[in-house]
Amino acid sequence: MRYYEDIEVGATEEFGEYHVTKSEIVEFAERYDPQPFHTDEETAAESAFGELVASGWHTAAISMRLLVENYLRENAGMGGRGVDELRWRRPVTPGDTLSVRTEVVDKRRSESDPRRGYVDNDIEVRNQDDEIVLSYTVTGMIERRNPGSSE
Amino acid sequence: MRYYEDIEVGATEEFGEYHVTKSEIVEFAERYDPQPFHTDEETAAESAFGELVASGWHTAAISMRLLVENYLRENAGMGGRGVDELRWRRPVTPGDTLSVRTEVVDKRRSESDPRRGYVDNDIEVRNQDDEIVLSYTVTGMIERRNPGSSE
Repeated sequence: MRYYEDIEVGATEEFGEYHVTKSEIVEFAERYDPQPFHTDEETAAESAFGELVASGWHTAAISMRLLVENYLRENAGMGGRGVDELRWRRPVTPGDTLSVRTEVVDKRRSESDPRRGYVDNDIEVRNQDDEIVLSYTVTGMIERRNPGSSE
Repeated sequence: MRYYEDIEVGATEEFGEYHVTKSEIVEFAERYDPQPFHTDEETAAESAFGELVASGWHTAAISMRLLVENYLRENAGMGGRGVDELRWRRPVTPGDTLSVRTEVVDKRRSESDPRRGYVDNDIEVRNQDDEIVLSYTVTGMIERRNPGSSE
């Protein structure tokens, strides 16, 4: 298990291979983002996108799946606090394969709770052509191995 | 249809009533955020949360559903560009009922594309006790009724 003290600022990891299907794009969008360019191929073809595209929240959810499976599972995580500078840079379309790159950019102890710390990760989600489709900075909470120490 | 020119900075709206069930929390989390405090009641009871809680990305997706159904449908929208200062302020748990408050905080014409403008909305998601569970600022793209005008 990886605790706050084990996190190194500057550490990077790359992982994941998530294949995005048309049916999953439509299924997610019908439930959570029923805009026509996410749910209907014909309407999408006439939209500014020119084709069916995944909901941006769907792409974010897929990045979380890849993070949990490949990265967060080793952490003594206590949930997320928030996200900054989330940018949908390119559309995600049926047939895309997504992967994730993480970089630890900051960490600090909680001032109010000696049992936890905060870790900021820059996240980039790329498609099979190595184009960034989504990027954001996420702040997660993580347990300290030695609560109250000065480390 | 509401175009860029129709958007008024300062305008607010409140809407929505989304009932969050245990089965939906678990279903979303098993697919996109399989951390034990989102998928398993017993493990969640022993976690820092003390009970099953919704994935933060699930809460964000629910807010999008409420926005599309009650707000964005009238807009000549062209998709989202990004999100800033997203904060998960309180856990969402089974049985919660969520609603949304929006406020237009800024708008500006695209410098590169005369057909579109950008609109920033502050979003607050509240539970049945009027507590804010999630907040963020989202930047959306919207068509201009009169491309190239100075309005």
